[in-house]
Amino acid sequence: MVKKAICLISGGLDSCVASWIAKDKGFQIYALTFSYEQLHTKELQCAQDIAKQLPIQEHVVIPIPFQKFCKSSLLQNSEMPLEANTLDTIGSVIPSTYVPARNTIFLSIALGYAESIDAHSIFIGANAVDYSGYPDCRPHYFSAFQKMADLATKRGIQGRSIEIETPLLHMSKAMIIQTGVKLQAPLAKTWSCYQGNTYACGRCDSCLLRLKGFQDAGVHDPLTYQEYPVWYTQ
Amino acid sequence: MVKKAICLISGGLDSCVASWIAKDKGFQIYALTFSYEQLHTKELQCAQDIAKQLPIQEHVVIPIPFQKFCKSSLLQNSEMPLEANTLDTIGSVIPSTYVPARNTIFLSIALGYAESIDAHSIFIGANAVDYSGYPDCRPHYFSAFQKMADLATKRGIQGRSIEIETPLLHMSKAMIIQTGVKLQAPLAKTWSCYQGNTYACGRCDSCLLRLKGFQDAGVHDPLTYQEYPVWYTQ
Repeated sequence: MVKKAICLISGGLDSCVASWIAKDKGFQIYALTFSYEQLHTKELQCAQDIAKQLPIQEHVVIPIPFQKFCKSSLLQNSEMPLEANTLDTIGSVIPSTYVPARNTIFLSIALGYAESIDAHSIFIGANAVDYSGYPDCRPHYFSAFQKMADLATKRGIQGRSIEIETPLLHMSKAMIIQTGVKLQAPLAKTWSCYQGNTYACGRCDSCLLRLKGFQDAGVHDPLTYQEYPVWYTQ
Repeated sequence: MVKKAICLISGGLDSCVASWIAKDKGFQIYALTFSYEQLHTKELQCAQDIAKQLPIQEHVVIPIPFQKFCKSSLLQNSEMPLEANTLDTIGSVIPSTYVPARNTIFLSIALGYAESIDAHSIFIGANAVDYSGYPDCRPHYFSAFQKMADLATKRGIQGRSIEIETPLLHMSKAMIIQTGVKLQAPLAKTWSCYQGNTYACGRCDSCLLRLKGFQDAGVHDPLTYQEYPVWYTQ
């Protein structure tokens, strides 16, 4: 019997590649996206476009009103400014873009969904290398979530663990991009910039990490940027 | 400095008593309620009424569209029937009223809220005695959630754990009711019945457990029931 997997698809590059890994492993895919009052809706549109490229069973989009209970510069109308970082300072402290308990909330809803459709796995594109400043992107966190999930669910107590799969956890951005290219993931449809403009800004943390990744991978980034950092070779 | 606590208030008896325990311990209370497409809105109204009796800082009500990803007889328009149990069969199997990952989803959102307002504790009225059939009401589950939460949050990794407080976990329903009476919790404003009619049905699992609890506690249940089980002495 084909195993089912929930794939968390944000519209970004990492979750796109993680979903193509799930596809490559032969899972039957159920796409899950959260509309959580993030800075812009462009990434939601990208999530839709990415999901359409997959052989999915369904694509569920769940709204969660994060602004009612959470503070982060990554939410709409936030009073917290987005910091301007360089590649050297990214990851050294917990950044203002940290959204409290975001991965825990997303994985919990994915867990309920997985239990309801009897899915074997949940794929999340979390990465511990670039986002070492986020507590909920570290390997220990995911191990602890797995243990909790095994006790929280009917499947878990029956010994049929719902597996939290983090295939990108220890990959560099360059490796993620190379994996995406190899699996023919639609990287051109992914969006990383914290702004939702026509072109990616080329200045925010997320643009810097992405461009550095493409540069290191020796791959051309199909997106157009408003400007490029001085170290980037077009 | 006064410590802050998030109190999960459902409109039911247990979460009401758990909130009064938090109040009794001197916490500054932030009430949190979920509108999750449960069977009826009566319990949401009860949650509002209960929260108004507390000295709360605010009452946040979060909608979550559970029907988009979850199956349970406790959700609106469910195709799963509510079983008719007797006191003997309750708790022997996982009942159809089990909502996959519900406590995990609720606690995760509470965790994000707690981290955002720098709260010390989260109070949840979970009980392992009456609901032994629910995987996410057992002590091991809450310990595992605590460990995960300590790794998931900024507070956790700074050694300032957000404590998941389950004061009712090992209490019988009679003890919960006696505690509520002692702390002057507004038990008359709580609702337990799976139906949202004017009077409680007196037949569903939840009514049976409640009436048994009041009977064992030697306390009069202030609610009016449509009918009473034969073993109940009015």
